[in-house]
Amino acid sequence: MIRIAIFGFGAVGKGVAKILMDRERMNRLIGNYSVVAVADSKGSIVSSSVNLKEALKIKEKNGRLPDGMNVIEIIEEVDFDVALELTPTNIDTGEPGLTHIKKCLKKGANVITSNKGPLVVAYKELSKLAERSGVKLLFEATVGGAMPVIKLIKRDIAGNRIRSIKGILNGTCNYILSRMEKERLSYRMILAEAKELGIVEANESYDVEGIDSAAKLVILANSLMDMDVSLKDVEIEGITEITPEAFEIALEKGYTIRLISEVSEDVLRVSPRLIPLNNPLCVHGTLNAILIKADLAGEIFVIGRGAGSLETASAVISDLAELYSC
Amino acid sequence: MIRIAIFGFGAVGKGVAKILMDRERMNRLIGNYSVVAVADSKGSIVSSSVNLKEALKIKEKNGRLPDGMNVIEIIEEVDFDVALELTPTNIDTGEPGLTHIKKCLKKGANVITSNKGPLVVAYKELSKLAERSGVKLLFEATVGGAMPVIKLIKRDIAGNRIRSIKGILNGTCNYILSRMEKERLSYRMILAEAKELGIVEANESYDVEGIDSAAKLVILANSLMDMDVSLKDVEIEGITEITPEAFEIALEKGYTIRLISEVSEDVLRVSPRLIPLNNPLCVHGTLNAILIKADLAGEIFVIGRGAGSLETASAVISDLAELYSC
Repeated sequence: MIRIAIFGFGAVGKGVAKILMDRERMNRLIGNYSVVAVADSKGSIVSSSVNLKEALKIKEKNGRLPDGMNVIEIIEEVDFDVALELTPTNIDTGEPGLTHIKKCLKKGANVITSNKGPLVVAYKELSKLAERSGVKLLFEATVGGAMPVIKLIKRDIAGNRIRSIKGILNGTCNYILSRMEKERLSYRMILAEAKELGIVEANESYDVEGIDSAAKLVILANSLMDMDVSLKDVEIEGITEITPEAFEIALEKGYTIRLISEVSEDVLRVSPRLIPLNNPLCVHGTLNAILIKADLAGEIFVIGRGAGSLETASAVISDLAELYSC
Repeated sequence: MIRIAIFGFGAVGKGVAKILMDRERMNRLIGNYSVVAVADSKGSIVSSSVNLKEALKIKEKNGRLPDGMNVIEIIEEVDFDVALELTPTNIDTGEPGLTHIKKCLKKGANVITSNKGPLVVAYKELSKLAERSGVKLLFEATVGGAMPVIKLIKRDIAGNRIRSIKGILNGTCNYILSRMEKERLSYRMILAEAKELGIVEANESYDVEGIDSAAKLVILANSLMDMDVSLKDVEIEGITEITPEAFEIALEKGYTIRLISEVSEDVLRVSPRLIPLNNPLCVHGTLNAILIKADLAGEIFVIGRGAGSLETASAVISDLAELYSC
C-alpha cells in the first residue's frame, strides 16, 4: 500500500486528486495506494484514507481546506511513502516548497514536485540529499507541463550526451506572441487579453520578463546537462519591448518571433528570436515546444501542452508510475 | 557484471557495438558489463569479453564474422543476462528473430530487439512468455528509430489512456513524398534516387507498399493500446500510385501528401493523406513524426530520426538503460 501525501491543493493538486479518484486507472498503474494527507496553505485533512471527493467539495465550497495540521506537522507526524509537493513557485527563496522537500527527503520519503522554486534555488543540494536518503526526487511537472522533457531525455534517449536544448517553455509568452503575429496588435493589448483569459501569473513579470522560462532552463541545465547554474547565470530578455512593427518586418521575410530558451555548452539564454514560419518551433497559442540535440539520436523535437490542471497533473502521475509502476 | 549477447551484426548491431566500446559513457549508464557473444548469420565470436573493435574490423574486412557457434547454440550454451536481437525483419514468419527471442526468454534472459518481425507475428505470446519467465522484452528500436515512442507513451505519460496515435513511420516513403512535393517528378524517378541513396529496403515493397509502416502500427496498437491485432487487420495503401499531378492539386490548396499510419479505437490504417503544409506532421526527408492523443496530457507531437545505424542503436541503448540503469 503506497501512502501518498499531497501538499498544495491549487490547480495542480486538484487535478492530481481527480486522477487519483480514478481507482481503476491508478490501481492498474501503481497497485494499491491511499492518500493519507491533503494540505493547502490554510488547512488540511489527515486520515488513513482521505476521501478526495469530499476534500475537493470542501475546497470548492470554502476556497480552502478545514483547520488542521500544517504541512510541517504532517511531515513530522504522519507516515507516508511519497509526498506530492504542489505548492506555488517562489523563485527567490524556493519556499515553502524547499523546506517541505528537504524535510520529506530527510525522513526518507520520496518527493514528486511541480514546484520550480526549490529546484531553481537548490537542485544540487536536494538531489544529493535524496541520494543520501536513498529516495527519489522527481519533477517532470516543473518543465513543459504534459510535454515530456525530463524523462524523455533521462530515459527515452538514455546514454545520449545532450548537446543543446532549445525551445518554448512559457505558454503565456507564446500565446501573446502568436496573437501579436496574427492580429498585429500591441503587446499591451494582447497582454490584457491574456489576463482576461486567466493565463498570466499573478506576478506577470514571471511570465513576460522571461523569468519563468529561465527557471525552467536552469532546471533542465542542472538535471539533464550536468551543469551547476543558477538563475543569475541566465541571460534573460523578455517580450515586453516587442512591437507590431517588429512582427511586420519579420513576417515579410518569412519569420516570426518567439521567446526561445536555450542551453548548450556556450549558451544559457532566454530571449525573443526570429524563427522561420515553417520551423516546427513556430507553435501557436499556449503550446510548449522543445528541440533536443543529442549525440547519438540526433535531433528530437517535441510539442505539448505546457500548462493546465489535468495536463500538469498528468506529469505528476507519470512520476508516481516511475516510482511505483507495477 | 551485465553479460550481453549480440545477435545480428548489420547496421544496427555495428552501431550498438560502437556505442558499447565507449566504456566511459556506458559505465556511467549501466555500470560494469561485458559482451560475451556477437553473432551474425554466418558466424560468431564467443568470449568472456569480446573485443568489439576487433569484431568490427573482421566484419568490415570479411563481410562476416568468423566460423563459430550459431545463435541457437550460443543461446543454449553461453550464459548471458540480456540478448540484443538485431537480426533482419521478416514480417511473415518473424524468423530467425522469433525463435531467438523465445529461446532467450525461456532461459530467463532479458531481450532487447530492433526486429519488428517477431513482435508483429507474436507480440502477445512473447510478452506473456517474458512475464512468465520474470524477464523483460524491450523494443524501442522497432518503431521510429531514435524518435521516442514506446517509452514516451509507457513511461513519460504513464497513466494516460491513449486515444490515438497517428504519424509518419517510414522514412523512405517520407523521403520520396517530400522529394515529389519539391521536384514534381514522378514516383519512379524519385524511387530510383532513393535507391541510389541506399535508403530503400532490398524488398522495396516493404517500404513503398506501406507494409513496414503497418508492421510498426501493429506493434504500437498491441503494446500501447491494449489491442490484439495483426498485419492482416490493417487497411494498407502504399504510395506507388501517387502522381506529380496529385501533388500539384494538393499544393494549390495548401496541402501536401504524406503516408500516414493511424490507430485509434475505430481506425487501423496506413494510407497517403492530405496534410496541411503548416501542420507539424508535414516533415521532410527521412524524418519520422508522431501525434499522440492522450486523455490527460492532450496532444503530444514528436519528430525524430526514424532510421540510421547510430540512431537505431541509440534506442537499443536506452532499453539497456531501462533494464540496468545505475
